[in-house]
Amino acid sequence: MTDILEKSQARQRLRSLSEALDSGALKQVSRILNGGLSPSDIAHLLESSPPRQRTLLWNLVDKKYEGDVLQYLGDDIRAYFLSQLNAQELAHILEDFESDDLADLLQQLPDTVIQEVLNTMDDQDRQRVEEVLSYPEDTAGGLMNTDTITVRPDISIDVVLRYLRRHRNLPTMTDSLIVVNRRDEFIGTLPITRLLVSNPTATVREVMDTEIEPIPVGLPDTKVATLFERYDLISAPVVDEQGKLLGRITIDDVVDVIRDDADHSLMSMAGLDEDEDTFAPVWKTTRRRAVWLGINVVTAFTSASVIGMFEETIQQVVALAVLMPIVASMGGIAGSQTLTLMIRGIAVGQVSGDNIKWLLNREFLATAMNGVLFALVVSGAAVAWFGDLTIGLVIALALVINLTLASVVGTLLPLVLKKLNIDPALAGGVILLTTTDVVGFLSFLGLATYFYA
Amino acid sequence: MTDILEKSQARQRLRSLSEALDSGALKQVSRILNGGLSPSDIAHLLESSPPRQRTLLWNLVDKKYEGDVLQYLGDDIRAYFLSQLNAQELAHILEDFESDDLADLLQQLPDTVIQEVLNTMDDQDRQRVEEVLSYPEDTAGGLMNTDTITVRPDISIDVVLRYLRRHRNLPTMTDSLIVVNRRDEFIGTLPITRLLVSNPTATVREVMDTEIEPIPVGLPDTKVATLFERYDLISAPVVDEQGKLLGRITIDDVVDVIRDDADHSLMSMAGLDEDEDTFAPVWKTTRRRAVWLGINVVTAFTSASVIGMFEETIQQVVALAVLMPIVASMGGIAGSQTLTLMIRGIAVGQVSGDNIKWLLNREFLATAMNGVLFALVVSGAAVAWFGDLTIGLVIALALVINLTLASVVGTLLPLVLKKLNIDPALAGGVILLTTTDVVGFLSFLGLATYFYA
Repeated sequence: MTDILEKSQARQRLRSLSEALDSGALKQVSRILNGGLSPSDIAHLLESSPPRQRTLLWNLVDKKYEGDVLQYLGDDIRAYFLSQLNAQELAHILEDFESDDLADLLQQLPDTVIQEVLNTMDDQDRQRVEEVLSYPEDTAGGLMNTDTITVRPDISIDVVLRYLRRHRNLPTMTDSLIVVNRRDEFIGTLPITRLLVSNPTATVREVMDTEIEPIPVGLPDTKVATLFERYDLISAPVVDEQGKLLGRITIDDVVDVIRDDADHSLMSMAGLDEDEDTFAPVWKTTRRRAVWLGINVVTAFTSASVIGMFEETIQQVVALAVLMPIVASMGGIAGSQTLTLMIRGIAVGQVSGDNIKWLLNREFLATAMNGVLFALVVSGAAVAWFGDLTIGLVIALALVINLTLASVVGTLLPLVLKKLNIDPALAGGVILLTTTDVVGFLSFLGLATYFYA
Repeated sequence: MTDILEKSQARQRLRSLSEALDSGALKQVSRILNGGLSPSDIAHLLESSPPRQRTLLWNLVDKKYEGDVLQYLGDDIRAYFLSQLNAQELAHILEDFESDDLADLLQQLPDTVIQEVLNTMDDQDRQRVEEVLSYPEDTAGGLMNTDTITVRPDISIDVVLRYLRRHRNLPTMTDSLIVVNRRDEFIGTLPITRLLVSNPTATVREVMDTEIEPIPVGLPDTKVATLFERYDLISAPVVDEQGKLLGRITIDDVVDVIRDDADHSLMSMAGLDEDEDTFAPVWKTTRRRAVWLGINVVTAFTSASVIGMFEETIQQVVALAVLMPIVASMGGIAGSQTLTLMIRGIAVGQVSGDNIKWLLNREFLATAMNGVLFALVVSGAAVAWFGDLTIGLVIALALVINLTLASVVGTLLPLVLKKLNIDPALAGGVILLTTTDVVGFLSFLGLATYFYA
């Protein structure tokens, strides 16, 4: 198995590239870079390189490949390289871009630069790009290409085949032609595989597929991804509110949405951006992380101030200081499990008003049962450790309180945040853990103050 | 925008289904379920339903759709429904499955049931399934279908077109035919779009694409996904070690791998499984969560025992108990950011031996700078709160120690775990947070004991 991979050409080229770079043989690096690697390979190489090596490599990439490579780069890195180019260079590089990729890219640039780039284009191209630019990036309109091949329903398959043969190339990812009427309104699709097996004398109308519902141009990109996943689509037509065909979305762009979307939940929960450059320079990393640490220093002092209310009780029974982090952390763990399940459930569209009551009930019961179980375990250990029955009772009660509350907060918080248009993946964890810390310390130390008074 | 969605047929069907279900109009439910919804819609509906409603719906699904619906269900739920069927029913349902889906499904069943199901098949089907079953589920072999259309290089495009027209249907996701020699060895691919624009008298050899490298049958599924993403593939041929064509992988199965893979990191970090059923019953949820809480109770006691070593110091200076969680939590936050970035970087193949030194250096410097910054902020606040310069000095030192150590552990831990074949997403967080708790309490209380002695 490894043998096959070792032998693979791409692998070997990457290895010799890395060696050439280490030894400073720049001519050789340039030859490998521009001779053997695909644009996506070069992009991956750039994304996997620390800043100095990255700039070096980028300068060695042949001008004619720069545009293709840019398309495959993450937003963060791409924005940096774009900022290094003037409008003339940009316009030249962007010439061969598909309209959706071009629009994505332009949206990262300052308005004055966008205008300069648009000015260098011919009328038709400019119009195409301006149209896509008019839709928000995270909607069907922002994802769509305008390179559709359309046919009328009343012509024969034979005519379609002859029409296609007049093309030198068909657009990539053309798995079906789009059938429209005289007013350019969407009627159906004609899969190419069906075209190949149909009777040439049949009409498009007889053969076409009318099951596929076209995608409204304003549909959020995550919903577009759900449709592609659910119906195993390769491409899908996009229409305006009157049903007029505007363009089509292809699976390669949808895969990027799926990847970004899934990355988003993971990265946000640690306060990171999904487009985070793994090899961002020290200074940039320091600044970005400081914001997250700053938020957490505030929440940490909130918990500390709760403990501060009980200084006297702690002085009286020091064991409380030893055990209090257990109550807080168990609540945090239980709550995080509920929160993560909910965030995923909301993201894939499984959680709704219809079933939230059932979920809240299930989470409450499951966590309460575990609360009782671990209350027994932890209080048993605490009593054995400190030889004090009261501390066992106090920690048992505090654990049950904190865990059950964590389940309720973990279930409802993401829904409330979503209603408020706050990203649950970003803010959910911080709010949940602050809650379980505060409630954990408050219930444990509060009960202790009552029982030891 | 919402208007368009509201009007969509599928939406309306789902709404009336939900209403019919609520009012107990089962006949109506059955009519909507089997008349209007696609198998993937039904699967989504089942996945979004609590157990009782789910069983009710499943029983109303027409026998002839059961197989299709099963294909779209998550592993957890599918395994449950499968366990309710006998071998005869299974074999009947599985008749129309593609070989990769069938193999996936069979792998969830007990060996005796697999044998029974295989026995009910005809020889050709059995052989096809047994072949796919012989490859691990998480490799190219486990993902592949055997429904390829192959052609020889020396025939003309016209002959190919006539050959295709003899089919009633082409396999779904057929974007290219596969060109093989007499020994069934892979030579190249013939994209259908190219077939349509080529001169009918040209030979396959003249028109075919030889740029695509076939996928080795043992390649891990995540690497297959990387190839599809990097080269924007719709389907790709799979070969054995001799280069003989075995089948092909299609983008719909790869999208599932991408989704599962991304979900895996998110869910594992909270100790959940990526196939976790959102609506698992109370008892199952309780048991699964108890395992994770059990692990965390052990780590919580580990931290507590560190605090226990300093009971005397705490009794002397109670402010230490108030401030100590701040040191632990700030270390945990800083470490989690590094850890998450590393887990993502490893998952997408950006992090390797070549750049780990640079990453370690960057993480160390960025976290150390933030460590100094927040040491000043926190110690300033602590001095103002408790009017004690010593406690400011102690917490400042402890914060710098804990944060810098968190950056080193966060960077190296996922690599070490990967070397040991332990999933970094699952074990990384627990180990990291235990480390930052222990080091946080130890450095803070240890330094305090030294300075206040």
